[in-house]
Amino acid sequence: MTNIPIYSIVAYSGTGKTTILEKLITVLKERGVRVAIIKHDAHDFEIDREGKDSWRFTRAGADVTVLVSGKKAAIMENRYVTLDDLLNKITDVDLILTEGYKSGKWPKIAVKRMESGKPLPLPVEECFAIMTDDPELTGPAVFSLDGVSALADLILEKENR
Amino acid sequence: MTNIPIYSIVAYSGTGKTTILEKLITVLKERGVRVAIIKHDAHDFEIDREGKDSWRFTRAGADVTVLVSGKKAAIMENRYVTLDDLLNKITDVDLILTEGYKSGKWPKIAVKRMESGKPLPLPVEECFAIMTDDPELTGPAVFSLDGVSALADLILEKENR
Repeated sequence: MTNIPIYSIVAYSGTGKTTILEKLITVLKERGVRVAIIKHDAHDFEIDREGKDSWRFTRAGADVTVLVSGKKAAIMENRYVTLDDLLNKITDVDLILTEGYKSGKWPKIAVKRMESGKPLPLPVEECFAIMTDDPELTGPAVFSLDGVSALADLILEKENR
Repeated sequence: MTNIPIYSIVAYSGTGKTTILEKLITVLKERGVRVAIIKHDAHDFEIDREGKDSWRFTRAGADVTVLVSGKKAAIMENRYVTLDDLLNKITDVDLILTEGYKSGKWPKIAVKRMESGKPLPLPVEECFAIMTDDPELTGPAVFSLDGVSALADLILEKENR
């Protein structure tokens, strides 16, 4: 199991969690934190492009297709990979954020937006932090929907950074 | 350093090395070998798509962006990664093939196609195997350009499989 701290953003669709994550990454990076983000896609995603060499290798049956340049790399696992296996492949970052993985054991940041009409996705006592515009939710770890900077403070405080 | 055997295909452009690799992957998979392929791209590749959530996370500064579904996963390192670090992230395969990496220490399969007008990319004595239509190149490890099955035999023999 990885030693890198993991935090999950948990929210129903329509709550703006992608935008919150995007802002949280920006704020954490500004503070010198190296960040990995895991997005679980219930639908199957398509990342490679038909006709590319890498696509041809994957089609030919490669279990793993890796693209590398002097600036970046992409490791495509063309098969089911457990979350633990994936986490073990994430190195040299200070923090892992996940979108989804509601049932994980790590701290969860729940998002509730009133106009979505959806409730908080987790019981309050299971939330490490809450981002919401619901005036009835209050407490030291409850932030406004644009309170990403305060959320980053709370995470970094917990991680002694 | 990884314990998984690595073989590199080395060839000038225009020799059909992508097609050879594609066929080699197919033959190896038919023989029950789990294969990873690493393609080094001197030009920078673009694998994510503008506007996708993953693209937004990368743009926001994520060092690593991971997409995962129940069928596959993609780990995008949005920064320079050493070859050793990359190799350490490749697990649960029996063989790693690379395109390029002429200066690597592992066995090299050189390709020479007469009509390309290009020479053998390596001295004969540095080649583990040669695929060519040059009648002047002969020997136990010299195969025709479509001799992928015999090449697979040679690799698996060396790996005691």
